[in-house]
Amino acid sequence: MNVLSAVKRMLVGRRLANTQLGETLLPKRIALPVFASDALSSVAYAPDEILITLSLAGMAGFMFSWQVGLAVGVVIAVVVMSYRQTVHAYPSGGGDYEVAKVNLGRHAGLTVASALLVDYVLTVAVSVSAGVINAKAMFPFLEGYEAVTAAVVIALLMIVNLRGVRESGGAFALPTYVFMGSMLSMIGIGLFRIFVLGQDLMSETADLTVVRPDGAEEVAGWALIAILARAFSSGCAALTGVEAISNGVPAFKPPKSRNAARVLAMLGALAITMLLGIITLANLTRVHLIDELTGTHYIDAAGQTIHSAATTVTGQLARVVFMDWFAPGFYVVITATMLILFLAANTAFNGFPALASILAKDAYLPRQLHSRGDRLAFSNGIVALAVSAIVLVLVFNASVTALIQLYVVGVFISFTLGQIGMIRHWTVALRDEDEPAKKSRMKRSRIINIVGASLTGLVLIVVLVSKFTHGAYLALVAMGAMYALMLAISNHYRAVEEEVALTSDSDRALPSRVRSVVLVQRVNLPTAKAIAFARATRPTTLTAVAVAIDDEQVERILDEWEAEDFGIPLKVISSPYREITGPFIKFVSELRTENPRDVVSVYIPEYVVGHWWEQLLHNQTALLIRTRLHFMTGVMVTSVPYQLRSSGARRDRARKATETRVRR
Amino acid sequence: MNVLSAVKRMLVGRRLANTQLGETLLPKRIALPVFASDALSSVAYAPDEILITLSLAGMAGFMFSWQVGLAVGVVIAVVVMSYRQTVHAYPSGGGDYEVAKVNLGRHAGLTVASALLVDYVLTVAVSVSAGVINAKAMFPFLEGYEAVTAAVVIALLMIVNLRGVRESGGAFALPTYVFMGSMLSMIGIGLFRIFVLGQDLMSETADLTVVRPDGAEEVAGWALIAILARAFSSGCAALTGVEAISNGVPAFKPPKSRNAARVLAMLGALAITMLLGIITLANLTRVHLIDELTGTHYIDAAGQTIHSAATTVTGQLARVVFMDWFAPGFYVVITATMLILFLAANTAFNGFPALASILAKDAYLPRQLHSRGDRLAFSNGIVALAVSAIVLVLVFNASVTALIQLYVVGVFISFTLGQIGMIRHWTVALRDEDEPAKKSRMKRSRIINIVGASLTGLVLIVVLVSKFTHGAYLALVAMGAMYALMLAISNHYRAVEEEVALTSDSDRALPSRVRSVVLVQRVNLPTAKAIAFARATRPTTLTAVAVAIDDEQVERILDEWEAEDFGIPLKVISSPYREITGPFIKFVSELRTENPRDVVSVYIPEYVVGHWWEQLLHNQTALLIRTRLHFMTGVMVTSVPYQLRSSGARRDRARKATETRVRR
Repeated sequence: MNVLSAVKRMLVGRRLANTQLGETLLPKRIALPVFASDALSSVAYAPDEILITLSLAGMAGFMFSWQVGLAVGVVIAVVVMSYRQTVHAYPSGGGDYEVAKVNLGRHAGLTVASALLVDYVLTVAVSVSAGVINAKAMFPFLEGYEAVTAAVVIALLMIVNLRGVRESGGAFALPTYVFMGSMLSMIGIGLFRIFVLGQDLMSETADLTVVRPDGAEEVAGWALIAILARAFSSGCAALTGVEAISNGVPAFKPPKSRNAARVLAMLGALAITMLLGIITLANLTRVHLIDELTGTHYIDAAGQTIHSAATTVTGQLARVVFMDWFAPGFYVVITATMLILFLAANTAFNGFPALASILAKDAYLPRQLHSRGDRLAFSNGIVALAVSAIVLVLVFNASVTALIQLYVVGVFISFTLGQIGMIRHWTVALRDEDEPAKKSRMKRSRIINIVGASLTGLVLIVVLVSKFTHGAYLALVAMGAMYALMLAISNHYRAVEEEVALTSDSDRALPSRVRSVVLVQRVNLPTAKAIAFARATRPTTLTAVAVAIDDEQVERILDEWEAEDFGIPLKVISSPYREITGPFIKFVSELRTENPRDVVSVYIPEYVVGHWWEQLLHNQTALLIRTRLHFMTGVMVTSVPYQLRSSGARRDRARKATETRVRR
Repeated sequence: MNVLSAVKRMLVGRRLANTQLGETLLPKRIALPVFASDALSSVAYAPDEILITLSLAGMAGFMFSWQVGLAVGVVIAVVVMSYRQTVHAYPSGGGDYEVAKVNLGRHAGLTVASALLVDYVLTVAVSVSAGVINAKAMFPFLEGYEAVTAAVVIALLMIVNLRGVRESGGAFALPTYVFMGSMLSMIGIGLFRIFVLGQDLMSETADLTVVRPDGAEEVAGWALIAILARAFSSGCAALTGVEAISNGVPAFKPPKSRNAARVLAMLGALAITMLLGIITLANLTRVHLIDELTGTHYIDAAGQTIHSAATTVTGQLARVVFMDWFAPGFYVVITATMLILFLAANTAFNGFPALASILAKDAYLPRQLHSRGDRLAFSNGIVALAVSAIVLVLVFNASVTALIQLYVVGVFISFTLGQIGMIRHWTVALRDEDEPAKKSRMKRSRIINIVGASLTGLVLIVVLVSKFTHGAYLALVAMGAMYALMLAISNHYRAVEEEVALTSDSDRALPSRVRSVVLVQRVNLPTAKAIAFARATRPTTLTAVAVAIDDEQVERILDEWEAEDFGIPLKVISSPYREITGPFIKFVSELRTENPRDVVSVYIPEYVVGHWWEQLLHNQTALLIRTRLHFMTGVMVTSVPYQLRSSGARRDRARKATETRVRR
């Protein structure tokens, strides 16, 4: 990399994604949209899920939307306050994973990691599904094809990410601000029209009555409480994405922690405002949202079963607020919602390499994911992420309601473990701290985290109880599988590390001499190069070895060898069964046995080719021999590459595959 | 391989297959079954095909079976006599391929090779299909499942051959002699009962009348001639396998050529006897064989369309000759026929490596097929052969009648080109020969080959004309594809050979010094081993290089390095973007640029692991670096393997994979 391109790289825009571990620093006005998109996008579907779940209690259910929304708002507030402690205490950006690992041990850390990995997949599945459902408001022909459309969108995101296009801050900022602006405008204008102008805005589902699956009008007692609990659990999906800021602290401008905490606060305020605003407006405009897959259905005033095209709360509110006043507003809201949801999915694709890098550093994933050299490994991860999300979307038919059941449990597992970790963090810090002012601040932080842990723990229990049979068990199974896999990888790396550790007992004897052997298959340029390189190392002995598989070939090699006069002897090994590998290995093995204190260096000419099919035609015997020699102690194998003309193109491809790409 | 196992290998039974290029020599009594099984097995289905084709002419067609059989017999006699010339002139066993290549040029040779390869697939498909149809006589429940059964049999043959079990002479001899004996007995006993005992033996289809597809009673003129030509072409399938002896001359005991010629003569006599004997008996017992897929059907005396269970001529004859006299005889004949057909298919699997070896030697196939070290490459070929045969069997529903249409054309292409090649061979030899006795013998041989070439050429034209639209075009397409592929491979190898040839212009400068670089990722045993090996070579300069991807790691490496005191300097390259590959490649590149006359030797520690999944966890960065370095001139890459404990099992597997296996 020359100076010019290094400078160019530095000047290239803002190369950040949500979970970037700090190359270019963000001012708060860029950081907010970068980190908020993930969190705010979940506000796009949380109200829907609340209402849909409440509809299971019939018309009466909708009356509880206030309370449920408020409860979710409280949780948001508490979680935000708790995370403000985390960003101060762990400015390195490890997030819940680091907090749990450092304070509660590797198993807690691994649990959080498993939950995070599974949630990446669900983020993609849920966000894209929600985006498609919102799109239906503008493109009604998508009806019936939601799952396929979602799968196609995920595939497109996968392709975009495989090409390595990274999101720049600008790509985030605009759609997020438009989303925030249009949603807040929608809420504001809606409330203005109702309360100031006194208009009677009714949503398109206002006149429809919801009939419960079993037909009964109402439900009460434990059944009602169960439904409220489920609605609350679904509504807590609004919290997904809040933790992203704790992962991204190093990306902020100094003072990093304080800026991160401020953005967290802004985010919390925005989320609560938008959530409660939408629910309020939904109540006032009598939005009755159902999902017919849950068994509920609409009947009209005449008692006829009716089918409404209304799909989301946002869609209904935007229509009733804007359509007669300023129609473009409707389209802006829907489009911005769609975009922010797809952006949130894209964030998952970008976040994966960063998370994988952290986990690989701790030896829970293959080590090459820690460094960025191997784009192929990350590509595999991106493909795995996309395929898993597509499978989920197809299996659950892009139903956000169904997917949410899996989504929330992972989020709250990592919240709770993170909070408990923070409690322990403050406890340990208090032991070593003497200054009273600091101590009291720590105690205050600890109280906040205790409240946070209790609340998220309670929510986790509610989520588990209310959603286990509805799909949460699937998420737990997936988390368990990831946990087991990462543990196995970690144990493997530990075992190997022990095996290869340099200890006082290790054999540090230096071999005395080097005996070199050059494999001769034909007398040509690659062989001549191998002999020349081998001679340059001035070994103690240098022997060229050819294996005779038929007489014609041996004659030719001997003639050509004499003509060339390489100055070293050519040993011809007979091979009655026309094998090259066996006799050659035997020769090297005998050389080792005769000279146990020396090291044998085997030189093998290798053709460097341009196309994949050329690989089938060359180097096969060389590969076999190298593989067999690898199992022999005291032997090293040297490839002497000879670059064929066709290899030029592949050289460039190989360089591109191992360099990180940057988009302006 | 120690002396004991070498001796053991020599003593191990007869390791031969049909196309073995001479390890253990065969006496004639073993050679006959070994080489005859392929040729005689086609006598098992040739009469069927003659009768089935003749049935298209209605009842009158069967009257021509004598003449058709006689014509085929004549062709057999001529071809056998022609091949007796070939085995004398080319005792090296190249067969038609060698004859065509040497005498008519590489394109003729390639044509024969393509025909041979395609015919291997068809041999498997036809033989197994015919075997299954014969089996139906004993296992009527196979009706309707012929294609699946055939596919399963082919799969079993594939598995047996993948395990490397080679046929020993004994495995061939018994079934072949039983087949010959039972068939000749059947013919003999049948004729005895009819002519000596005066019994009126009638087959089970004797009373059935065959109705032609269009319902007309008879056919005459050109239509009849066309049917006769097609019947003759199908009957010529009896010739498949005759050429095997010309490939196997080296396997005979000396005098090789004369013994091979004698066995050819015996084979020819047997084949003609069996063919004419079966047709005679079929005529006398009024066998009316049809294949309802061709559109013909049976009606009984009352004119009702009837469905007969009779499937093969052999089945009908065995039943009528043996059932009332000596029932086991029926089962022996059917079983022996089945076995010899499956044996013939197995021969194709065994013959492939030998043919591939010859073609690879001439650079028409990947070179590693010439030596036997790579069992994997041969395994790929065996799988390809089996899959192609299974596809054919499924597509054509195991119909021997349909498959024969593809089969015969390839056989006669190689016959004809082989004969023409022999004509040219004698012509050239005559120019250089002076002794009159030898000259007249050569002229006589030439006449035989001229007759042979004319006849096989004529048959080829008849086959092409009569069968082109019935399926022969498919075989020609396949041959064309193989031809194109092998030509492309050959051209590629030629181009590469030119590129890498040592000429007077080639650069023979020896590099002056060696600068070694050791890649350090961790300070452990593999790294220590790499450093020790690198030091043993006493390079001009030796530098250990570590790439710093995070500060923690760098600190640790530096500490451990100082503790170990390897005595060489450790250079740490910074990497701001957490890549290992890029900075390391850059370092090596700069080293080369600064020292253009020296060679750089890069040492990379490699973990040798036992299980495939372990490969995903280790050596990935090493592999990337090696690949990039391959494109740099003046650099050689040395792997210093460190064998982990788990690698023991894989070492044994690797050894087995590259050794040829021998069955006792």
